[in-house]
Amino acid sequence: MKVAKQRKPVAMPEDVAGNGLLNRRALLGQGIAVAGAGLAAGKATGAAAEPLANQPWSLEIGGITPALQTPSPFEKDVTRILSNPNGEPRTSHARTPHQLLNGSITPNSLHFSINHCGIPNIDPAKHRLVIHGMVRQPLEFSLESLSRYPLVTRLHFLECAGNSAGLFAKTPLQATAQALHGLVSNAEWTGVPLGMLLDEAGIDPKAKWLVAEGADGEQLTRSIPVKKAYDDALIALYQNGERLMPGNGYPMRLFVPGYQGNMNVKFLHRLKAIDQPAYTYFETKNYSQILPGGKTWRFHFLNEVKSFITTPSFGQSLKEKGYYAISGVAYSGDGRIAKVMVSADGGKSWGEAALAGPVHDKAFTRFVMPWRWDGAPAVLMSRAWDEAGNVQPLRAEFVAARGEASRPVPSPNAFPNQHYNSITSWGIEANGEIKHVYA
Amino acid sequence: MKVAKQRKPVAMPEDVAGNGLLNRRALLGQGIAVAGAGLAAGKATGAAAEPLANQPWSLEIGGITPALQTPSPFEKDVTRILSNPNGEPRTSHARTPHQLLNGSITPNSLHFSINHCGIPNIDPAKHRLVIHGMVRQPLEFSLESLSRYPLVTRLHFLECAGNSAGLFAKTPLQATAQALHGLVSNAEWTGVPLGMLLDEAGIDPKAKWLVAEGADGEQLTRSIPVKKAYDDALIALYQNGERLMPGNGYPMRLFVPGYQGNMNVKFLHRLKAIDQPAYTYFETKNYSQILPGGKTWRFHFLNEVKSFITTPSFGQSLKEKGYYAISGVAYSGDGRIAKVMVSADGGKSWGEAALAGPVHDKAFTRFVMPWRWDGAPAVLMSRAWDEAGNVQPLRAEFVAARGEASRPVPSPNAFPNQHYNSITSWGIEANGEIKHVYA
Repeated sequence: MKVAKQRKPVAMPEDVAGNGLLNRRALLGQGIAVAGAGLAAGKATGAAAEPLANQPWSLEIGGITPALQTPSPFEKDVTRILSNPNGEPRTSHARTPHQLLNGSITPNSLHFSINHCGIPNIDPAKHRLVIHGMVRQPLEFSLESLSRYPLVTRLHFLECAGNSAGLFAKTPLQATAQALHGLVSNAEWTGVPLGMLLDEAGIDPKAKWLVAEGADGEQLTRSIPVKKAYDDALIALYQNGERLMPGNGYPMRLFVPGYQGNMNVKFLHRLKAIDQPAYTYFETKNYSQILPGGKTWRFHFLNEVKSFITTPSFGQSLKEKGYYAISGVAYSGDGRIAKVMVSADGGKSWGEAALAGPVHDKAFTRFVMPWRWDGAPAVLMSRAWDEAGNVQPLRAEFVAARGEASRPVPSPNAFPNQHYNSITSWGIEANGEIKHVYA
Repeated sequence: MKVAKQRKPVAMPEDVAGNGLLNRRALLGQGIAVAGAGLAAGKATGAAAEPLANQPWSLEIGGITPALQTPSPFEKDVTRILSNPNGEPRTSHARTPHQLLNGSITPNSLHFSINHCGIPNIDPAKHRLVIHGMVRQPLEFSLESLSRYPLVTRLHFLECAGNSAGLFAKTPLQATAQALHGLVSNAEWTGVPLGMLLDEAGIDPKAKWLVAEGADGEQLTRSIPVKKAYDDALIALYQNGERLMPGNGYPMRLFVPGYQGNMNVKFLHRLKAIDQPAYTYFETKNYSQILPGGKTWRFHFLNEVKSFITTPSFGQSLKEKGYYAISGVAYSGDGRIAKVMVSADGGKSWGEAALAGPVHDKAFTRFVMPWRWDGAPAVLMSRAWDEAGNVQPLRAEFVAARGEASRPVPSPNAFPNQHYNSITSWGIEANGEIKHVYA
């Protein structure tokens, strides 16, 4: 093989923060030599014989193309963790495996779901949505009639208020990003702007709330501010291009971008305009944040600015010193992500990560930070800012304001367990193992 | 029920073009009364009794949450059309059902695929990529080593050069958007910028081409300009957040945004830097556009600016006069979509459609146009412009430049059948049926 002149020198980008964080310009065409292994001389024998042996799959006819594609059998462990795999009469959680994914879209098969009364098998031709209450003209909609409206399409995250509740524990739980943060996902939602339907029904100006009710067995009910309905709420009909998944609200759901998951009422059946909130179970007993002094926050809707590193993370390990990419997701219910800072030394110094753009409103933004690991212990952290000026709180300030839990695994209503948005820290040990730590 | 004062009047937006095309500001918060049916008085009986009967699924416990979500059984017809369902030893096409989808993302289950030698079942732990030829140091990569690079994430369409070939026929084929245009899809791709790896290997400045070779049974081989490799090419590792689908190149593929699908070599195994193209089968005998004078275009790589209406479209029907949304996708291999114009009168007048933003580079952009159908025959068309200044050609000018086919269903090499990017027209008949027409 001809030894060629090098096109341009590979210059590693400079350090921008402690413990090996590198300039994010590495992603913008700057040379970076990471992990390519030099081919042994005996394997590269020139143009006459191509390097690399052919594997068996290169020497045979492959499998049949299916009508619906599914992942490779080698990806069988990329699934949601289920809290109730046998469908006992209680809540079922299914968590997104963030540490095995990349990019910003959550595939529909892996979007998180929580259902309190199983997943209804709804006939879309028979399902109806009614808008009633304080309106001039109550209106009834079928899936077909809603599909005649000019639909809008937007990328948005959706997060359960109880996501990351395990981080209220006084000592760090040793668990994956999926187990800790799996109740948030990100998808492209397409639907009818709710304000358009409220206008058509002629909503009373004195109606300040909508009571949204689902068609599932528990008929889950939440109160939604009319102002939010007009701001950016949708009746969502499509999820990542296809009809909603059954566990995510098929055939239609309310979508209130940036508001806690439970308000995005699935299997949406009725919207009633009234002049006060309904004070339903999920907005009074549950989903009221208990504060250290014993008071609670009522109507704490917004999912605050947040980020977490998905790789490297608990359950993975670093096999050798060298170059790695630190990568994760950032999002805010209050707008677009403005920047993400990353630390490799437990918060002593920070460098700015690269963001995959264009950055969308109230949506996952993938951040990436090149990193040189020297083999010594390190603590990786990420911290996000949004365009509204909010910053993800450090753990000490978050715990002071919002409390801690005395039991390691929180359960509803016993102690603070809602809207955790502080920092997640992964400790890299000298042997390459990764632990969940507080820093 | 209290008859409430209307919040604000519902003013239908003004017409902007002939045959009922309405101002796209309808999507920006302007009231529009489309399809809501007034609730019969007997059904709306006030607060004490909620309107709408409860269906059986609201009165029982639902189904078990699965580890991997799949669509509702009511969506069983939303599948890819297969050209070779029994896996005979020939090419297998699987087409995306655009007329049943919305938004811009193609779910992975429904992304189109073409495989000439079946789908290999590749063990990702054993698969290797080598970069060799005119380089200083040949390099070998595993999936794990590539994952250590700072990955980039982008939304991009992917289109077979033969997509829409049926529209070269002299008379319009009566077929769905899926059958006509199903060999294009859109996904979020995450991978390693190829230029980073070429720098690391030290590519010779005299090397102007890369010969990309797949690990499938045919070892599909294409020549890629080094310039394109540095511009925006990726070694793609993730598709919509998860590992690639087997039919789309698992565990890694070349991705050359905006270039014809066949160049985006799947199961990527070798990249050889050379000083001239390899003149492989797919860049000489096949995928060379035959022009009316008998000459052919060689190395015609770019997927030109294009759009088509997905709803209403062939196979659907309009059941009554009234308001509808005309909706479709637009894309260009040469950059971002700048605008999409829609006509309801066969091209006599045009109105500008609303675009779902942010608009991404070389990616599907969903467009929507509100429309009032008065029950008379209409011809719906869409026409796209990109930011590079290219405009989707009208059919007459396209056919003059590129030719027509004498047989109704084109097959490779017999006559012009590549890179069709002219306009698709749907004729609405007075009875609401929809035909494919040329206009």
